[in-house]
Amino acid sequence: MIEIHPLEGVPELVEGDDVAEHVVRVVELRDHDIVVLAQKLVSKAEGRVVRLADVEPSQFATTLAGTDGDARHLEVILRESRRVVRARQSFVIAETSHGFICASAGVDASNTPSEGSVVLLPDDPDASAARIRERIRELAGATVGVIVSDSFGRPWRQGTIDVAIGVAGLPALLDLRGTRDASGRELRTTQIAVADELASAAELVMGKDRAVPGAVIRGLQLEGEGTAADIPIPEDLDLFR
Amino acid sequence: MIEIHPLEGVPELVEGDDVAEHVVRVVELRDHDIVVLAQKLVSKAEGRVVRLADVEPSQFATTLAGTDGDARHLEVILRESRRVVRARQSFVIAETSHGFICASAGVDASNTPSEGSVVLLPDDPDASAARIRERIRELAGATVGVIVSDSFGRPWRQGTIDVAIGVAGLPALLDLRGTRDASGRELRTTQIAVADELASAAELVMGKDRAVPGAVIRGLQLEGEGTAADIPIPEDLDLFR
Repeated sequence: MIEIHPLEGVPELVEGDDVAEHVVRVVELRDHDIVVLAQKLVSKAEGRVVRLADVEPSQFATTLAGTDGDARHLEVILRESRRVVRARQSFVIAETSHGFICASAGVDASNTPSEGSVVLLPDDPDASAARIRERIRELAGATVGVIVSDSFGRPWRQGTIDVAIGVAGLPALLDLRGTRDASGRELRTTQIAVADELASAAELVMGKDRAVPGAVIRGLQLEGEGTAADIPIPEDLDLFR
Repeated sequence: MIEIHPLEGVPELVEGDDVAEHVVRVVELRDHDIVVLAQKLVSKAEGRVVRLADVEPSQFATTLAGTDGDARHLEVILRESRRVVRARQSFVIAETSHGFICASAGVDASNTPSEGSVVLLPDDPDASAARIRERIRELAGATVGVIVSDSFGRPWRQGTIDVAIGVAGLPALLDLRGTRDASGRELRTTQIAVADELASAAELVMGKDRAVPGAVIRGLQLEGEGTAADIPIPEDLDLFR
């Protein structure tokens, strides 16, 4: 049996705050627990917040923004992007510097510290996860897995699901190659995106409108370690670029 | 807190078997429980199994199969498809008759009852979910939600995640329009694909290589009812067709 506990009682964080300290203060962690943290919590503690008043939009950003968008917001999105994958009016789907493809390159204007500011993804979410994991070990003596999660839309299916953008202390992908199905035949599905599934499971207790910025998943023992950087499909293998 | 219990002790089912009866035999269900069932369990009980020896491949199927594929398998995939979205050698991503876009139109050769047969998606997975839900109410007196799940790949990210292809007694999408974030500003993310997240959460205890064909999720109270047919993005709104 797996348990998913909401992370309750964590206040709004600001740059320089110690995420791990706030986590261990509200939950008693055990070895093998998986701590899932909303990207926004981690980003705010890392100071990844931009005041739109400080942003000078480029000509491209102004064009993309058109009449319905904010050119400064678009400018921030473009700075976070390696490539624009699709754009419809001011709605942009971009490949981030990390290689994730998502709406607005992960730049978000909801749940920001103040009106007129936007929150960026962590600079290196795998490193964030690893750092928080180490710090939890220091503070609580527990060896846990850490996932930094974000809500992504996806082609073909409505609604967002939470996925892993940072992973430490657990595999991002479970490799089933060589394993057999219940009838003894080799499996065709070769990889399960277990970190993404964990992020989605955690979202069930988080909720966008409530102040629950994470969850602890207990009862799963996963072998191996990976990073969220393992997840993006290499461009030459991707049928949808 | 949410609990996810593996559905253990359900035998291999065949056409005509009563799925609900097998579920209530191994788990004591309560109101508001969400029963997630692997598509293959449901499909087998509905007799959605095709023996490849009985299939006459078309010319198109033979062409797609090339030298590395089985033309009869491709023929079954094409019969289940409304449209081929991408094909690379014998690997086909198709839109199914239900409107889902997935590998092989959901036709699967692993975990089949016998070598040389393939399992199709249920004809109407929402109806399957609704039927099983009603039957559980009859047998156990519990009003539960039911999800029929399957493992889908996705663009850009490696690995499969489980998603909902049939839903009854719970919403497929949680509509957050009009709700506000923790700082009181209106949310931009408008829908959460909660049924997909539940399917992914259930997969964590299922595992492809073990004989766990489902899970019970307990501790979540979701308002409203929807169907998996609500999930596909209407073609004119989809940036990736």
